[in-house]
Amino acid sequence: MKIDVTKTAQLLENHDNIIILVHANSDGDTLGCGYALLRALRKLGKKAEVLRPEDVGKKYNYLFDDLGKEDFEPEYVVSVDVADVKLLENDVREKYADRINLAIDHHPSNCVECEYLLLEDTAAAACEIVYKVIAEMNVDFDKKIADCLYTGITTDTGCFRYSNTTAQTYRMAANLVEHGADGAFINRIMFDTKTKSYVVLERLVMDTLEMHFGGRCAMTHLTLDMYEKSGSDESETDPLASRTRQIEGVDVGVFLKEKNDGTFKISLRTLEPVNASEICRKLGGGGHARAAGCQIEGPLESAREKIISAITEYLYK
Amino acid sequence: MKIDVTKTAQLLENHDNIIILVHANSDGDTLGCGYALLRALRKLGKKAEVLRPEDVGKKYNYLFDDLGKEDFEPEYVVSVDVADVKLLENDVREKYADRINLAIDHHPSNCVECEYLLLEDTAAAACEIVYKVIAEMNVDFDKKIADCLYTGITTDTGCFRYSNTTAQTYRMAANLVEHGADGAFINRIMFDTKTKSYVVLERLVMDTLEMHFGGRCAMTHLTLDMYEKSGSDESETDPLASRTRQIEGVDVGVFLKEKNDGTFKISLRTLEPVNASEICRKLGGGGHARAAGCQIEGPLESAREKIISAITEYLYK
Repeated sequence: MKIDVTKTAQLLENHDNIIILVHANSDGDTLGCGYALLRALRKLGKKAEVLRPEDVGKKYNYLFDDLGKEDFEPEYVVSVDVADVKLLENDVREKYADRINLAIDHHPSNCVECEYLLLEDTAAAACEIVYKVIAEMNVDFDKKIADCLYTGITTDTGCFRYSNTTAQTYRMAANLVEHGADGAFINRIMFDTKTKSYVVLERLVMDTLEMHFGGRCAMTHLTLDMYEKSGSDESETDPLASRTRQIEGVDVGVFLKEKNDGTFKISLRTLEPVNASEICRKLGGGGHARAAGCQIEGPLESAREKIISAITEYLYK
Repeated sequence: MKIDVTKTAQLLENHDNIIILVHANSDGDTLGCGYALLRALRKLGKKAEVLRPEDVGKKYNYLFDDLGKEDFEPEYVVSVDVADVKLLENDVREKYADRINLAIDHHPSNCVECEYLLLEDTAAAACEIVYKVIAEMNVDFDKKIADCLYTGITTDTGCFRYSNTTAQTYRMAANLVEHGADGAFINRIMFDTKTKSYVVLERLVMDTLEMHFGGRCAMTHLTLDMYEKSGSDESETDPLASRTRQIEGVDVGVFLKEKNDGTFKISLRTLEPVNASEICRKLGGGGHARAAGCQIEGPLESAREKIISAITEYLYK
């Protein structure tokens, strides 16, 4: 049943011993939601706990490092920023997937089976929705709650860069910094800190840069040997795909990443009017208009040829 | 004479044929101020012109490409975001430095000799001040004015990342996007677009990465031959200095840039508690706590040794 912010606040006020679920591969939005909500519920005298995945990066410590653990028998289960129970950690999914009472989310594709769903798909971040819920419960925003909510907002807007950023986003950020959120610190941690191994990996990948179609298309690739050379691994490869599109004049950025089974994962990043999804669909993949992907058999030369001919076909059809 | 926003608006309302001066090496803040103000004044039926330096990058075209030129005899001269007349282009300085009627600025060091000065040094961007002046003149913010002001605000806050970003900054951004400012477009142009030659130059510089002091210090260098190899030149080197400090665990980032005379310009970027200015002062330079610089004789090996021993002395004194 779909509900609004007021009803959500009432439900939370009327329950106790609350378990909060965040998605695996946790990012700043799901964790920001989880810990902001936990802090608000505890301020209301309730027991609450976030089921935090073990692999959450150290950089998120400031969201929760002052919090003690509470033991209690779970009575109410809330998921935040979880679009699908498939995105929960395995053991969490097994235990809680069929007993979620309330889901708070901003993904239009949300398909969590739950008693109540608060879904606002115009919110840039799920933290924007949790912000409203906390305000509706009349909990004062303290510095820690403000840091948590700011973290989610800046994470999901790419530091206010993406087109999902709205006037509401900026107004919430204004209020959060007034309540003590340390935007400069959070943005440095989230956007301006790279591991040494990532820096080396990026350099190896950028060494493979080639331009096609008179400069419209920039292409890089990553081969498995680069992990060993750099000390990095696949968990650090996310930002590499968008590096190609940053080059002036490029409206098709292509990144080929070798997988353990010898196939290549292709990531396309485009600018208007090039539709990345249409190109990837030619090769059995898909995605969004500006970001899409597909999987192609190796070796590298053959994968490169296939994606280039798909782009050729699209551009000159 | 120092004045406030109300008095500034009155002065502008009471004058016509207005020349607006921006600083050389123009950035998004000075240009954003200039064109927002020009547009507001023209909306009030006045004649106004920005003296735009010839070398303004193409990426700023959207600020002014719809504007026609107006010919008139200058009666009133306003400088925006200009801290010192030394920062004006030579011919502009010669003609106008001693006849500036009104200076609008946010630099605490402002030393422009002028009849009236509107200085708000807590404003992250001069565009925040011009925003208030335009509102005070009761000019409606249209999309173009909003784009101009947003450009200055995002430029001088590093896309809302720097610690100068305040609640006022975010609130103004909220209002500007409501008036049509295209934040996603502007931020892509300002922060997410690199020339091909810059990408190659950055790769050459990052290839020189070396770590010192157990990972606390990252150092890179640029030698003159890299300009030829990359097709780049010194005008593109600004962002390179901060790349070193982005590495996790690094609190002293060092960038050595060879100059035509064989000396090296050293740029230090630090995190708390390391004081970059104190280190650079040991070598005859200076600057701010987190960003400072100095000039050292070459060759590279000797320059590198000198800066390393200055850092050693600072860290282990």
